[in-house]
Amino acid sequence: MEDRKVLTIASHVCVVSGYVGNSVTTFVLQLMGLDVASLNTVQFSNHAGYRRLKGFRTTAGQISDLYDGLKGCGLDDFGMLLTGYIPSEECVEAVGRIAGDMKGKEGGCFWLLDPVMGDQDRLYVSEGVLPVYKSLVRMADLIVPNQFEAELLSGVKVDSLPSLSRAISELHRIYNVPHVVITSVTFTNGDKKMLCAGSSATSSGVPRKFVFNVEIIDGFFSGTGDMFAALTLARFREEAEKDGLEVAQSWGCDDAVGPLELPLCRAIGRVLGSMHLVLVQTQLARDKVLGTKKREEEVEVGSEEYIRLTKASELRLVQCQSELKDPEIGYEAVVLK
Amino acid sequence: MEDRKVLTIASHVCVVSGYVGNSVTTFVLQLMGLDVASLNTVQFSNHAGYRRLKGFRTTAGQISDLYDGLKGCGLDDFGMLLTGYIPSEECVEAVGRIAGDMKGKEGGCFWLLDPVMGDQDRLYVSEGVLPVYKSLVRMADLIVPNQFEAELLSGVKVDSLPSLSRAISELHRIYNVPHVVITSVTFTNGDKKMLCAGSSATSSGVPRKFVFNVEIIDGFFSGTGDMFAALTLARFREEAEKDGLEVAQSWGCDDAVGPLELPLCRAIGRVLGSMHLVLVQTQLARDKVLGTKKREEEVEVGSEEYIRLTKASELRLVQCQSELKDPEIGYEAVVLK
Repeated sequence: MEDRKVLTIASHVCVVSGYVGNSVTTFVLQLMGLDVASLNTVQFSNHAGYRRLKGFRTTAGQISDLYDGLKGCGLDDFGMLLTGYIPSEECVEAVGRIAGDMKGKEGGCFWLLDPVMGDQDRLYVSEGVLPVYKSLVRMADLIVPNQFEAELLSGVKVDSLPSLSRAISELHRIYNVPHVVITSVTFTNGDKKMLCAGSSATSSGVPRKFVFNVEIIDGFFSGTGDMFAALTLARFREEAEKDGLEVAQSWGCDDAVGPLELPLCRAIGRVLGSMHLVLVQTQLARDKVLGTKKREEEVEVGSEEYIRLTKASELRLVQCQSELKDPEIGYEAVVLK
Repeated sequence: MEDRKVLTIASHVCVVSGYVGNSVTTFVLQLMGLDVASLNTVQFSNHAGYRRLKGFRTTAGQISDLYDGLKGCGLDDFGMLLTGYIPSEECVEAVGRIAGDMKGKEGGCFWLLDPVMGDQDRLYVSEGVLPVYKSLVRMADLIVPNQFEAELLSGVKVDSLPSLSRAISELHRIYNVPHVVITSVTFTNGDKKMLCAGSSATSSGVPRKFVFNVEIIDGFFSGTGDMFAALTLARFREEAEKDGLEVAQSWGCDDAVGPLELPLCRAIGRVLGSMHLVLVQTQLARDKVLGTKKREEEVEVGSEEYIRLTKASELRLVQCQSELKDPEIGYEAVVLK
C-alpha cells in the first residue's frame, strides 16, 4: 500500500479559475505533497454556479471500468480515498463498490467521504442518492457533511449548539463512523457567526466534540467545500503522522486524548486558517475586479452581471500557495458539550 | 483577455503518479502560478506505458461542446493555449477550430503547439493526423516537436548538427512559425549525448538558432514531453515579461537580439535545469523501489515486472516542487550555425 497516494472521485470542471470538485482537490492535495489520481464523475465546461454549462457525465459503468483499469495494472494501492460530488445513485453505488474494494485490501485505505447532496435546504443530486449514502457512511473513516447534509443523515434539525452536538452524536451512533466534521453551520437567530464542529469517537463510541467559531467572509464562493475536504484530508494525515497514528485503524488515537488535543481538531484549526486566508484573498481580488462591493442578492441569477460576479468570485488557489501550504494562523477550538 | 489564464488540451490520465498529458501540464502550470483550464481528449485509467488500459475518448463533438460552454459564459478569455496529445484527426481539427477562435480575439492568444505524433520512428496517432497538423502549425506561436515529429513536419532527416539546423530553418520557412524548439535529439553515431535546439525568427524570418547539450538520464520516463511543454510555456512567458514582451505579437523580441540572449533561449536553459533535477530524483526513487538498476530492455513488455518498472519510473512531480519552481541550476546554450 502506498500510503501517500490518494484517489479522488468527484466532478471535473474544465474551466480556468473554475475551481470546484476535482480541480480544487487535486491541486490542493498535490501542493501538500500527495500523489493524486482523479476519477471524474462529470466533465463540464464550467461549474453550475454559472447556470449555463455544457458537457457530459461519466456513467456508472465508465467509473467502474476506469477503476478496473487501475486494478489491472496494480495501480489501485491507494492509502486514501476522497469522494465528493457524484450526481446519480448508480454512480454513488459504483463509488461505494470501489471504496469497499479499496478498504478490503491489506493495509486498508482511509476514506474521507464528503456526502455532497445539497445546501441551505436544497438538494442538488437526485433524491435516490440519500439512501445510498446512508448505506455507505458505515464504511467511511471521516465524513464532512455541511449543516443540511448532516441533518439529512442524522435526522436531527440543527438550529442550536445542543442540536448540533446531538447531530454529531447521532452520526457516530447510527453509522459507527469514527470521525465527523460538520462544516459551515449557521443558526437563524441573527448571529453573524459560522461554526465548524467535529468529533472523533473513542474506541467505545463516546464522542469527543469540539467546535470552532469561524469568521464569515461575505460573498458566494464555489468550491469552498472541496477545498475544505482536501485540506482536511492532508492536514489530518499530517497530524495523525505526528502522533504515529497513520498506521492505526482509521487514524484513531488513544481514548485518553481530550477533544482539543485530537489530531482531527488540530488539523481543522490549520484548515480553517488556510480557508480564511484564501477566502480573504479571493474576496479582495473579486472586489478589485468588480470595482464595487455589489451583493450577490442584488444581481439577477443567470444574467451577464451574474456571470461576471461568479467569475470574479472564483477561488484564488494558485495565487495562494503559501497560504495553503503554511497558513501561519490557526483557529482555536472549544469543547462542545 | 486574462493573460495568465491557460487552456490546456491533452489527454487525461486518472492514475496516481500517472503523470502524462494534462496531469503533468496542469500541475506544473499551476505551480508556476498560472490558472489552468484543462480539456481532456481522453480519459484513461492509466497511460499507455502500462500496455493495459481502460477508459474512453472524448469525441470531437464533445471537445467543441466543452469549448462552446466556456464561450457561453465568457470564460474563453485565455491568454495562452497549450495543446498536446490528441489521438484522431477529427479531434485535432476540432482543436484547430478552437485555436483559430482564440487567436482571432482581440489581444490574441499565445499557442504552444506540441505536435504529438510519435517517437523514435513510430507513430502513435492515426496517420491522418500529420496533414492536419501541417495545416495548423501556421497558426501556432511556438512548436516543440521531438526529433521524429520535427522530421515529419520539416521533411528533413535529422542525423547531424547541420541537418538539425536545416530542420529548424525549414520549420520557420514552411510554416512561418515564430518560435521552434526541437526536443531530445540524438544522433546514431554512438555519442551518448542529447541535444535540445531552438530558434526565434527575426521579423524578416531569419532564424536565430541555439543548441543545448543535455545530460541523458538513463531510463524510460513517461510524461517528460508534457513536463517540457508546460515548463517551456511558463518560463518563456516569464522571460518575455522580463523584457516587457508579453504584449508583443507572439512574444517576439527585437531583431537585434542574438540567439543566446533570446527570451526563448533563456527560458529553455531554466526548463532543462528543472527537467534534469526532476529526472534525477525520479531515477533515484525508481532505483530505490526496484532495488536494482535493471534495464528496461531486459524486461518483457507488458509483464508484471514491466508494470512494476513503469510504475516505479513515474515522474516525481509533487515531490519536486522546489526543483520545478526554482531549479537553481540552468543549462548554457551555444549558437547553432
